[in-house]
Amino acid sequence: MGRCSLLLLLLLLAFLTPGAASLVSPSLRAPSSLRWSTSFRSRPTITLKYSIRYIQQKVDHFGFNIDRTFKQRYLIADNYWKEDGGSILFYTGNEGDIIWFCNNTGFMWDIAEEMKAMLVFAEHRYYGESLPFGADSFSDSRHLNFLTTEQALADFAKLIRYLQRTIPGARNQPVIALGGSYGGMLAAWFRMKYPHLVVGALASSAPIWQFNDLVPCDIFMKIVTTDFSQSGPNCSESIRRSWDAINRLAKKGPGLRWLSEALHLCTPLTKSQDVQRLKDWISETWVNVAMVDYPYESNFLQPLPAWPVKVVCQYFKYSNVPDTVMVQNIFQALNVYYNYSGQAKCLNVSETATSSLGVLGWSYQACTEMVMPTCSDGVDDMFEPHSWNMKEYSDDCFKQWGVRPRPSWIPTMYGGKNISSHTNIIFSNGELDPWSGGGVTKDITDTLLAIVIPNGAHHLDLRASNALDPVSVQLTRSLEVKYMKQWISDFYVRLRKMN
Amino acid sequence: MGRCSLLLLLLLLAFLTPGAASLVSPSLRAPSSLRWSTSFRSRPTITLKYSIRYIQQKVDHFGFNIDRTFKQRYLIADNYWKEDGGSILFYTGNEGDIIWFCNNTGFMWDIAEEMKAMLVFAEHRYYGESLPFGADSFSDSRHLNFLTTEQALADFAKLIRYLQRTIPGARNQPVIALGGSYGGMLAAWFRMKYPHLVVGALASSAPIWQFNDLVPCDIFMKIVTTDFSQSGPNCSESIRRSWDAINRLAKKGPGLRWLSEALHLCTPLTKSQDVQRLKDWISETWVNVAMVDYPYESNFLQPLPAWPVKVVCQYFKYSNVPDTVMVQNIFQALNVYYNYSGQAKCLNVSETATSSLGVLGWSYQACTEMVMPTCSDGVDDMFEPHSWNMKEYSDDCFKQWGVRPRPSWIPTMYGGKNISSHTNIIFSNGELDPWSGGGVTKDITDTLLAIVIPNGAHHLDLRASNALDPVSVQLTRSLEVKYMKQWISDFYVRLRKMN
Repeated sequence: MGRCSLLLLLLLLAFLTPGAASLVSPSLRAPSSLRWSTSFRSRPTITLKYSIRYIQQKVDHFGFNIDRTFKQRYLIADNYWKEDGGSILFYTGNEGDIIWFCNNTGFMWDIAEEMKAMLVFAEHRYYGESLPFGADSFSDSRHLNFLTTEQALADFAKLIRYLQRTIPGARNQPVIALGGSYGGMLAAWFRMKYPHLVVGALASSAPIWQFNDLVPCDIFMKIVTTDFSQSGPNCSESIRRSWDAINRLAKKGPGLRWLSEALHLCTPLTKSQDVQRLKDWISETWVNVAMVDYPYESNFLQPLPAWPVKVVCQYFKYSNVPDTVMVQNIFQALNVYYNYSGQAKCLNVSETATSSLGVLGWSYQACTEMVMPTCSDGVDDMFEPHSWNMKEYSDDCFKQWGVRPRPSWIPTMYGGKNISSHTNIIFSNGELDPWSGGGVTKDITDTLLAIVIPNGAHHLDLRASNALDPVSVQLTRSLEVKYMKQWISDFYVRLRKMN
Repeated sequence: MGRCSLLLLLLLLAFLTPGAASLVSPSLRAPSSLRWSTSFRSRPTITLKYSIRYIQQKVDHFGFNIDRTFKQRYLIADNYWKEDGGSILFYTGNEGDIIWFCNNTGFMWDIAEEMKAMLVFAEHRYYGESLPFGADSFSDSRHLNFLTTEQALADFAKLIRYLQRTIPGARNQPVIALGGSYGGMLAAWFRMKYPHLVVGALASSAPIWQFNDLVPCDIFMKIVTTDFSQSGPNCSESIRRSWDAINRLAKKGPGLRWLSEALHLCTPLTKSQDVQRLKDWISETWVNVAMVDYPYESNFLQPLPAWPVKVVCQYFKYSNVPDTVMVQNIFQALNVYYNYSGQAKCLNVSETATSSLGVLGWSYQACTEMVMPTCSDGVDDMFEPHSWNMKEYSDDCFKQWGVRPRPSWIPTMYGGKNISSHTNIIFSNGELDPWSGGGVTKDITDTLLAIVIPNGAHHLDLRASNALDPVSVQLTRSLEVKYMKQWISDFYVRLRKMN
């Protein structure tokens, strides 16, 4: 049964940021230069010019015994910044290399001029180059002890205070926190905990309620399933039936070899556990495709066609096919995600992450604070049934990291659903995004606003504007800019009153 | 020059809670039974009936490497609690034995019936019986590492969640945080950081701005001086001159022996450093008297007459007296504070604390987060000049505890003067209280309210009602109850809307 927990752990790894830990063969990855230009394909005039800088941060903001510091990396772009009436847009970095997030948050670049904004992208500790103990950072639970959301938020707080102290003209400027996915959670939490440092937050695709029993654990997989149901006839039904097709074939004499060949696996399946790993990997793939179901060709993690779920579903039009045909269809569908470039020689089940994302760090976080239950029942969703078993999850974590998760801590710390006393947070959610199930999708007050983006996938609104963007996301971005400008103008009104 | 820092450190120890580390001979302390009855002298009908309970708390809420727990003590009284429409008044314990705070917070007992309130008094970690490492808790900086305001607030959060989960009827009840002095700071900060757990906070005599350069460092001693100036002719001027009188006498041949005898010191002065210690101790005494300048006979730390500053000032009517007369007057004045009972045989300069308060813990806190600068110039105040020297302070801390203070951390964490986005906090301040200089004494918004109590000393409003209370504190308490009832009623309106 540990397998189930492991799967869920992997899913957590994979889901939070699109493709966070998805099983991508490195050989399939587009070179970063391509990703760069692709992100801004429709707006070639914008170039990302930033400086890379570092700030010394305390390893432990919440204790005084360890006085060690480390270098936190951040990016800063002030091309469009104006001292007079300007603003600071502060990206609260999430679980990966900050340059990668910077390159995939075109929205901030698109609005920089209009907002007279300085852009700052702060790297999250234990990711990218911001390693508190260098190469030893992940060596054991003692070195990992300072990888928490509270420490990360404290880094952001110190960085903002430092920038305002050291950059002439920055002191009396309104700062807005922005982030997507886990970074969106951090943006929202930052506004909640440090409202004296940021006038508001844009939390895009931030599943702040995917904890404890705040939302049903099956909501995530249900949304994935809905995406597939809506993207082609019989699509989710075919996938629901595909697992048993694999199971039946695997049980036959030469089944494992046949499956390995039919799916062009780089490493052949040899034992029954391999079959479970195969199915987990395929499940993750469908989840990832749902998350990056963008309306245009994109290259967030790797090259994908526009509306990739639709493209995948072309291979699942018929649910009543022989098992061998089903598996051949699965192979075609997997190729949409893993071989859109047409250059893959085989599919690699054992690769689990792009190097831009910190798999180790996130695995630890998922085993400590960031416990986000997911489950499936195979009836209301298209996956095999997996229950959520906290005890197994905890035991697996203890085996892997020597720590036990505290699943109720995040709601205790950040308020769970009882957050109405906070102000100035926009929660935007793509309706297609499985993470919207744990997000805030209804206004809480008139300053805690929810936006749901029909036809939007995971933090689509934070991506660069694109000619193929649906109207919904264009409107969303306009609204977001409107609210942010309001916060900024309120800030300056207060400032003038004080002086 | 280390002496100066040490003095300030001692002052910090002494000031925060009246008599926190004042140099009281144990033989002079009233037995706790007396203190008990004195607190409620004017309302003999109220008896403090509470249960003593314990909750297992994580030693480290912000890290997962140490999974150790400890027993946090709390007191609970539900005599007047009503499930229907009731409330929970939660005292955020400060630097001492929680029973002592409970006995000295009669206001909560006085209003329990009117508020249908359950009373909870939570002990602060590292104080009283709530020691994370038992007898080793203060052994070194490694064991002290978990003594921070953030950890203390997290304890409170976990305790509230636990009470609401385990006490039938407590789940859907509004909780209000209350505290005085450092406990008042914690109450305010708790509302700021955990507004989902408490609907509001009453922060009495909470100098949340006595940090960094948020207020001038000399404001504290100026207020003490004003208290003495207003309490008798020539009073502060006499005290200002008294230091040189001591200095001149100390330089004479038999001066130290003469001083020791004139002041009836238990241990004679033998070297010149002893003279500085003597003056520091006398300074602290005047500060303490100012803090507990209550309008009635009280026994907060030891028996004192009503308006003790006035009584002290009777001995300082004449500032132009010979040095020997001045010292005899000092002795008489010291006796008001140290020997109101008339039973002291000598005065003890080396005793520094009542056992109800945690001197070690506070000394560490003052050397880490709780750096509250004070200074004096001898011109605008009645004390010898002492500048604030952060470097010396830090060096002294490093010598004593092996840690260095982070003086800007508290403003970074809790917002400094920029707290206007929070709601539902009452900051009450006694105008006589030296700590009012670092308190919030003007309304910030219409839900962040300031009350200044003329003729009020340190958190007078939290003490039990007394026939000799000035009208100002009676009005203050009425206002506080009015606001708290409003928060409670708002809570129930929201609750009904949700259901």
